[in-house]
Amino acid sequence: MSLPAEFALIARHFRPLAGEGALDLADDAAVLDLPAGRRLVIAADAMVEGVHYLPDDPPETIGRKLLRVNLSDLAAMGAAPLGYLMTTVLSRGTPDDWIAGFARGLAEDQRAFALTVLGGDTAATPGPTCLSLTILGTVAPGAVLTRAGARPGDEIWVSGTIGDGALGLKVLRGEVPDDASGHLARRYRLPEPRLALGQAIAGLASAGMDVSDGLVQDLGHLCRAAGCAAVIDAVSVPLSDAARHLVTGDGALLASVLTGGDDYELLFAAVPDAAPALRAAALRAGTPITRIGRMVEGGPAVRVMDGKGAPIVLAREGWSHF
Amino acid sequence: MSLPAEFALIARHFRPLAGEGALDLADDAAVLDLPAGRRLVIAADAMVEGVHYLPDDPPETIGRKLLRVNLSDLAAMGAAPLGYLMTTVLSRGTPDDWIAGFARGLAEDQRAFALTVLGGDTAATPGPTCLSLTILGTVAPGAVLTRAGARPGDEIWVSGTIGDGALGLKVLRGEVPDDASGHLARRYRLPEPRLALGQAIAGLASAGMDVSDGLVQDLGHLCRAAGCAAVIDAVSVPLSDAARHLVTGDGALLASVLTGGDDYELLFAAVPDAAPALRAAALRAGTPITRIGRMVEGGPAVRVMDGKGAPIVLAREGWSHF
Repeated sequence: MSLPAEFALIARHFRPLAGEGALDLADDAAVLDLPAGRRLVIAADAMVEGVHYLPDDPPETIGRKLLRVNLSDLAAMGAAPLGYLMTTVLSRGTPDDWIAGFARGLAEDQRAFALTVLGGDTAATPGPTCLSLTILGTVAPGAVLTRAGARPGDEIWVSGTIGDGALGLKVLRGEVPDDASGHLARRYRLPEPRLALGQAIAGLASAGMDVSDGLVQDLGHLCRAAGCAAVIDAVSVPLSDAARHLVTGDGALLASVLTGGDDYELLFAAVPDAAPALRAAALRAGTPITRIGRMVEGGPAVRVMDGKGAPIVLAREGWSHF
Repeated sequence: MSLPAEFALIARHFRPLAGEGALDLADDAAVLDLPAGRRLVIAADAMVEGVHYLPDDPPETIGRKLLRVNLSDLAAMGAAPLGYLMTTVLSRGTPDDWIAGFARGLAEDQRAFALTVLGGDTAATPGPTCLSLTILGTVAPGAVLTRAGARPGDEIWVSGTIGDGALGLKVLRGEVPDDASGHLARRYRLPEPRLALGQAIAGLASAGMDVSDGLVQDLGHLCRAAGCAAVIDAVSVPLSDAARHLVTGDGALLASVLTGGDDYELLFAAVPDAAPALRAAALRAGTPITRIGRMVEGGPAVRVMDGKGAPIVLAREGWSHF
């Protein structure tokens, strides 16, 4: 008896990605054990063709981006990766080559981040491709980093550089000039989940999250969870050379940097005394961190100040899908 | 500061469904512990508007069907439900009423099956609505039911009745006359995950799975996992009164019953000596089971015999999305 095309597709492209517990993706579910003494951390994110990635993005980077935005959620909790499940609802007529490239990218990142696929589902749609991934990780009890817990007086930090993803999308759309290095487009297509940093700061920060929908809007979530306000200094926000070059040429792009999203950097708060330990942790993790402001008394609001201490008014604070 | 529409939607419709560990759906991930001494069982299934459900199906049943097809995967492993994550990629312009009905259905089934939502994601698409759910369950070590393990000589059993879902789809499409009771359409829209039965037979059956893509095709998976063949007796396959009425009127519908899918009944194999214990387990679980054939020596193949011992030739064995 021959297998239908759906099973052949899974066997050819996805079964080689399966790891321990996945039962070769041939059973109804995966069965696994958590490492002794660890808690389960679990999150899910979806990506839609034309919404979260561009239809002509290379398939190799689309699978990796899907995995990385989910890994970034683990990083934000201070968790270490365990495995993932994925549902791929592919636009009818998606070429086999595309699926092969998508799986090849996943294979590369599975090695880079030491995890494997545990299960999932594959179907077809007359609409755009719709991908969903559930990430599993683990954390030691007492070492969970959550969004709640910041206090007035805490300093606000971010990892890496902000705005590259949003500007990278503009580069790929031809809305701003390309940077010779391709840095911005690469950052849009391949975010860097800050897993080592998340685990290193989990015991030091009072609250944390990853920046996915825009720095200002996401900082608003920390404010809401804490019942206080935040003030950030726009000139302190760390920019890559490529981003700084664009913003210097067109000051209006600063709003894209602060609200555009697709950063997947860590945003966290900590008491001022924690600064030396945070810097040491960042050094160990190999990820730069920068202090950009502080939490203050007041209702949930984010104030962005320019270099002269005057407020910057933003038309929108971040990204919404509706 | 106001929240974007996406967060308002989540707060209004999905946050009331959140349970312990979900951190109010307001964090980057859920954090939870497994009950002591249990293994994690995890699976994911997607449903696409117009593919897995009809665009005019009531939203209340769509959420429940999504949850139930995933619960059926837990049932097939002998596992008990723990929680779920869900990504809803909604067709642009989906009315708020639709989302409210979808969430209301989920709330009802959360109570019925004693589980809560742990996390997820919401986005919009220009295409049809695309739903993905990851189900978490637990099982005692040594009590896992898998697809592998059947042997020649084992008897083949199914739970409940077969073909109702496939015929229910035909009813809803106007391809066959409606049954007065609405039984078939209801079975298409609201499958019954056999959780109690799955846990009750896990120590008795040699192999098991749920029937989602068609009885014959799915039995082929048990054959492939076992390296043997199966013979089933078409007249033994249990039918509901409504299904029997349709098949009696049009014999060609028997093929839809055997290969149409959407059954979400359990299909399992066991040594003949296990029959009395299986019947007792089924009685305890409140789910009827029926013996429909046996595993035999040979390469992986499923032979379906009519009442006179002659083979029935089927144009296709089950459902594929590609």
